[in-house]
Amino acid sequence: MSPHITPPQVLAFDVFGTVVDWHSGIAAEVQALRAGVDGDAFALAWRAGYQPAMRRVMSGELGWTLIDDLHRLILDELLPRFGLGDMAEAERRHLNRVWHRLDPWPDVAAGLQRLKTRHTLCTLSNGNLGLLTNMAKRAGLPWDCILSAEVFRAYKPDPVTYLGVARVFDLNPSQVMLVAAHQDDLAAACACGLQTAYIERPAEFGLNNHKDVSPHPANTLHARDFLALADQLGCR
Amino acid sequence: MSPHITPPQVLAFDVFGTVVDWHSGIAAEVQALRAGVDGDAFALAWRAGYQPAMRRVMSGELGWTLIDDLHRLILDELLPRFGLGDMAEAERRHLNRVWHRLDPWPDVAAGLQRLKTRHTLCTLSNGNLGLLTNMAKRAGLPWDCILSAEVFRAYKPDPVTYLGVARVFDLNPSQVMLVAAHQDDLAAACACGLQTAYIERPAEFGLNNHKDVSPHPANTLHARDFLALADQLGCR
Repeated sequence: MSPHITPPQVLAFDVFGTVVDWHSGIAAEVQALRAGVDGDAFALAWRAGYQPAMRRVMSGELGWTLIDDLHRLILDELLPRFGLGDMAEAERRHLNRVWHRLDPWPDVAAGLQRLKTRHTLCTLSNGNLGLLTNMAKRAGLPWDCILSAEVFRAYKPDPVTYLGVARVFDLNPSQVMLVAAHQDDLAAACACGLQTAYIERPAEFGLNNHKDVSPHPANTLHARDFLALADQLGCR
Repeated sequence: MSPHITPPQVLAFDVFGTVVDWHSGIAAEVQALRAGVDGDAFALAWRAGYQPAMRRVMSGELGWTLIDDLHRLILDELLPRFGLGDMAEAERRHLNRVWHRLDPWPDVAAGLQRLKTRHTLCTLSNGNLGLLTNMAKRAGLPWDCILSAEVFRAYKPDPVTYLGVARVFDLNPSQVMLVAAHQDDLAAACACGLQTAYIERPAEFGLNNHKDVSPHPANTLHARDFLALADQLGCR
């Protein structure tokens, strides 16, 4: 284990990008549905709609909305832009649930099994509980508990979410570590007193789209993947 | 499978009494702490304080309160009645977490593993998320998702809790089955449109205290234990 850290009791994981590869999963499904669609651009556009949609909720313009429903709002705006405006309702509903069917990165299952031996593992995702449960069941993700924006009725990076994890487990924030591939998420958690672990995931936006994965000094740990994180936390 | 039922997609489990044996666990811990205390009476009294404490919350007399904190309120009232009023704070805190350390009935682990092959398994307990997570991790309970009164901010038998499970998974209530050893819980779920399975647990209140486990015609299924439930649902 890294010598200077106090081992966290709970590891809380960001999910989209950190645990599962949303870009490949979405690109592949949309290309399989309609030959000729630019799957890379479609995946990036769908994901890019996510932050503005959450802001509409947090500003009060929309009432509290599950991510499944935000994904659908974005999808309905997106389809005509990709020449898919004629897609039928049943197909839209099926495609919208692609977020439940995303595959984990190759290191995830083995890494989580090692981390689970010494830590309580939970999600902390803006994804809704049903989505995260379906994803975990399909992909064999061994969460001890699924926590979500849905439980706290606020999206990350609202402090209510990070502090909520500590509250659920009756711990100090410093006994919880957020694990994420996104520096903004980690910075918000750090500001609440959580420990943080950055995971690189250089292909998050596709192999042709660059992602800066350089270390940030504020994070407690920086790991290439979940196996490297398990090494750093002393989990065999 | 029983020929006349539509298989539920989600099985939602009551926990205290249905999954874990609270009576034996509490009686054993309190007797180990102080020789001569009547563990049977202590366990029954602690559990009996639970419904009145929840009513104080639901009536508005108390604000929203986690079960860990209700258990502690009841414990502090109980200790002097059993000659244990001198118990120190650290010991009270440890004893209060006995609810996190309860053992499952002998059929539970194998039964849940079989049921998990064809159904999504979640808890639906008035216990808080941290309690249920700690219990599951210690006892190896393979929940797909932990749901609790804490998520819905209402205790069973409030309809919000039963309907909340269906809403989380975007299902009709009839696609969810509540599994419980308590007829009042099942009747409330049935009134919300859920399917119901009664589990007998004749020793719930201790071997010396009778429990009526006779079948009730309103339930979808009646099973001796989780292995029998797996048989009835066709889960090998």
